[in-house]
Amino acid sequence: MKQKIGKVSPETLEKNVFPYCRHHRNLIIPPRIGEDAAVIKTTSNYIAISSDPITGADEKIGWLCIHVNANDIAVSGAKPLWAVINLLVPLKTTGNKIREIMKEAGRAAEEIKVNIVGGHTERTRIVKKPVIIGTMIGEIKRKPFSSSTSNEGDLIIMTKSAGIEGTAIIASSLKKRLSKKLDNQLIGKAEKLMEKISVLKEAMLLAAEEGVTAMHDPTEGGIINGVWEICEASGKGAIIYEEKINVTEETKKICETLKIDPLKLISSGCLLATIRPEKAGKIVKLLEKNKVKASVIGEITNLYKGRKIVRLNGSQEKLQYVQDEIWRIHEES
Amino acid sequence: MKQKIGKVSPETLEKNVFPYCRHHRNLIIPPRIGEDAAVIKTTSNYIAISSDPITGADEKIGWLCIHVNANDIAVSGAKPLWAVINLLVPLKTTGNKIREIMKEAGRAAEEIKVNIVGGHTERTRIVKKPVIIGTMIGEIKRKPFSSSTSNEGDLIIMTKSAGIEGTAIIASSLKKRLSKKLDNQLIGKAEKLMEKISVLKEAMLLAAEEGVTAMHDPTEGGIINGVWEICEASGKGAIIYEEKINVTEETKKICETLKIDPLKLISSGCLLATIRPEKAGKIVKLLEKNKVKASVIGEITNLYKGRKIVRLNGSQEKLQYVQDEIWRIHEES
Repeated sequence: MKQKIGKVSPETLEKNVFPYCRHHRNLIIPPRIGEDAAVIKTTSNYIAISSDPITGADEKIGWLCIHVNANDIAVSGAKPLWAVINLLVPLKTTGNKIREIMKEAGRAAEEIKVNIVGGHTERTRIVKKPVIIGTMIGEIKRKPFSSSTSNEGDLIIMTKSAGIEGTAIIASSLKKRLSKKLDNQLIGKAEKLMEKISVLKEAMLLAAEEGVTAMHDPTEGGIINGVWEICEASGKGAIIYEEKINVTEETKKICETLKIDPLKLISSGCLLATIRPEKAGKIVKLLEKNKVKASVIGEITNLYKGRKIVRLNGSQEKLQYVQDEIWRIHEES
Repeated sequence: MKQKIGKVSPETLEKNVFPYCRHHRNLIIPPRIGEDAAVIKTTSNYIAISSDPITGADEKIGWLCIHVNANDIAVSGAKPLWAVINLLVPLKTTGNKIREIMKEAGRAAEEIKVNIVGGHTERTRIVKKPVIIGTMIGEIKRKPFSSSTSNEGDLIIMTKSAGIEGTAIIASSLKKRLSKKLDNQLIGKAEKLMEKISVLKEAMLLAAEEGVTAMHDPTEGGIINGVWEICEASGKGAIIYEEKINVTEETKKICETLKIDPLKLISSGCLLATIRPEKAGKIVKLLEKNKVKASVIGEITNLYKGRKIVRLNGSQEKLQYVQDEIWRIHEES
């Protein structure tokens, strides 16, 4: 069957897209043929909005899209609730492929109780492979968090480990190249890191705690950019210590093999937060009790002290905005 | 300067993207380096969300993106207020080109008092030309409208004329080919039709009136799909009359030249609404008084009577979902 350029047919929407949209009682106008917008009854006076595409991954892009957008919402202290999805696919893409992507998005939405409430699905010559762009809306019950409200003297904590998302993407896309140097069990374990990409649980725990001053979801440029971005948004300096930053065995081995700095590798799955020093111990314990690995990796300083990372060998390096390692690797391969 | 793949640099964001984001007092967390989500204080319990990419146009894609997304919100009866923008551009795209697109988006946002509050800007090999994907959020004061609530016996009205957006896109992209058969003044006038793309004014007027039962923004597939979509969403039939459908001289001439059916041509700029018959006259007058051309083009019927269009020559044609003419023309050229 010849696929037609433009918006997909109503049949494709009914069969391959709408089944993965949840219907919630607060969704007054749900996704339906011919509706232009979803209408939602909110129960809060504050809403958070974020929007991100998935461009660096080839696998499970629907699933990833929901989770990375939910992460952005969660770090604002909001509960992610409503998602809209734009799916742009090359002309030759079948309805089944569209269904597969939406099914993955629907699975992620189920996992975190998010409702896909609308969007747009189109075959177009503009894209070379399927691109999914998500927008997430969340509602805030307590106060909104931001990256900009960290204070001098706050401790910086991170959850899980560095380069989670990047490790998984690389393991999956460069499997053949890696398998020449690493054993397949490790590569398989690295691919499975993708399952750890949601920071919703820890963000919701932290949002309810006294003493958390800022939260941020480090993505492109990894922990380095993540900390730099908190500094930039807050107008502060910082010092972080490489030795305090947890890096899994899988990430370490893959990064060594490809000569990648794991601290500059796309890190969805890790949450950065700044915390008043007297509360940090209690909060790290709370996270660990809830089975979320967490550690203090440094401190927010006065802007004039600069932004630094102390490397394993003791040398100090200026913390500045970097391009993600994943793009360099993709460019080379 | 070599452009880097991935998220654009903080400098590009500061210089070329953020200047076009408006800061509103209800925008608690504005777009800023390192922020993951915008946080907004809403003043209504109902919000409307829509999301659409611009894929068929090459010119003013930023401006178009804001208006087509605002249209989708307006027909739900909501006032469009908050926009997030995803801008995916080919690797070679300069900061200046990004600025140009965002400036156009900012101009559209100014025109209709919308606030661009966040998004994502990335250089990627996935796209062949710049793609902008907008999501718009609006707040509803009165009742939400939908395409699904038309009743048997309601009259169908349309504003302005058929194929507004498509005529402008074609005039701009096929100027050379058209100028062999049509005079340049007419082509210029056709290009200018783009300025008529917003239906915000008429949608807000209609949302405040008694007797309006459904509103819809006909896009791909033009008036034919637009009416079909209202029927499909409402579970109804319809009969419309080609002789009642306003087509501008520019649209007519361009469509004749390219053998296009103007009623199947992408029609942002036109608003379709269904209205209780006793109110239709008053409402058409209200629109005309506000300088919005409007006409009754047909009637909603019982589903079992089917969906039909009476052509100029008196023949009846089944109204069914069609592919937009613009894709066929683009494929041929």
